[in-house]
Amino acid sequence: MQTLREAIESRGQAVGSSIVKVDNFLNHRIDTRLMFAMGQALADHFRPAAPTLIMTVEASGIALAMAVAHALDDLPVVFAKKSPALNQGPNLVQERIYSFTHQTECVIRADRGYVPAGSRVLVVDDFLADGEAVRGMLSLVQQCQSQVIGVGIAIEKGFQPGGNALRAQGVDLKSLAVIREIRDGRFLFCDC
Amino acid sequence: MQTLREAIESRGQAVGSSIVKVDNFLNHRIDTRLMFAMGQALADHFRPAAPTLIMTVEASGIALAMAVAHALDDLPVVFAKKSPALNQGPNLVQERIYSFTHQTECVIRADRGYVPAGSRVLVVDDFLADGEAVRGMLSLVQQCQSQVIGVGIAIEKGFQPGGNALRAQGVDLKSLAVIREIRDGRFLFCDC
Repeated sequence: MQTLREAIESRGQAVGSSIVKVDNFLNHRIDTRLMFAMGQALADHFRPAAPTLIMTVEASGIALAMAVAHALDDLPVVFAKKSPALNQGPNLVQERIYSFTHQTECVIRADRGYVPAGSRVLVVDDFLADGEAVRGMLSLVQQCQSQVIGVGIAIEKGFQPGGNALRAQGVDLKSLAVIREIRDGRFLFCDC
Repeated sequence: MQTLREAIESRGQAVGSSIVKVDNFLNHRIDTRLMFAMGQALADHFRPAAPTLIMTVEASGIALAMAVAHALDDLPVVFAKKSPALNQGPNLVQERIYSFTHQTECVIRADRGYVPAGSRVLVVDDFLADGEAVRGMLSLVQQCQSQVIGVGIAIEKGFQPGGNALRAQGVDLKSLAVIREIRDGRFLFCDC
């Protein structure tokens, strides 16, 4: 998506060779015009697969999920919650994930009642790097006897393994911008 | 707002005499159609005050902030981040707040660069009870040499002190539904 790439180039900041700092338009301050355009682009890609529900994880996935949902005739959004530890509750589905960024483990969880069996779920997140958050959400959806119809991402770090692992599993992954390398403080993109 | 009251009555759940459980449409599963209608209602109220920026706090305020921003010609959203402790950084503004729900203290913070001095800020959140989160955001805005033009809330617990404290300070507070009491498991609303 050209406008997202331009935003990353002009307003993003590379920190070292692996950190993409875009909190001035994506995950602290939100450029909502760009966010809704991104939502529209993901909606256009996934509409033929007839999703019935959007899943994301708090906090920074919520804005993009709202934008995608709005472009898909206001589909419901379920955002997985993060906890430091496993919780109790018969209706909870949960999965441990590891944050390489923060070097901590956490648990993401959702209420089974909000992902009815047989849902066609579009998983959405702002970033894809090692893929732990997405892997966790795929597990939640499976535990809810539902099906992931695709994964929509704003920025994929192509030099980390999450994206290619999903593609290898046959997941329909759509990343609006894929950074293949950070070199001398500049972002190089895949043409995919 | 009639549709919100109806949603609270038909889909919300009272737990004891003070907990309003609405995670099936507001803060875990999101009914996005209702959320965008709520955003429109808050936008209609605050448009004359010419806000230039929406501020909220992660995580569950983000969805409503996106909806309000969209109805105000895609104003930027800044969501304050929560940390367990004070952070360093010359560009950070921060404030300690106390969560009565979780009985913990946390710190909310924002990057001063994203709230330019002189901004006209509309503060938005899903719930208002004791008012600690809103008090914290008012402080952040003030530390950024900016002005709060109003506070927009989805559900105010009218039997807790946050809302009236803001009104007493002369803040333009618009709550789309004000629950004045929970009695025998039923919600009673203010007509305000």
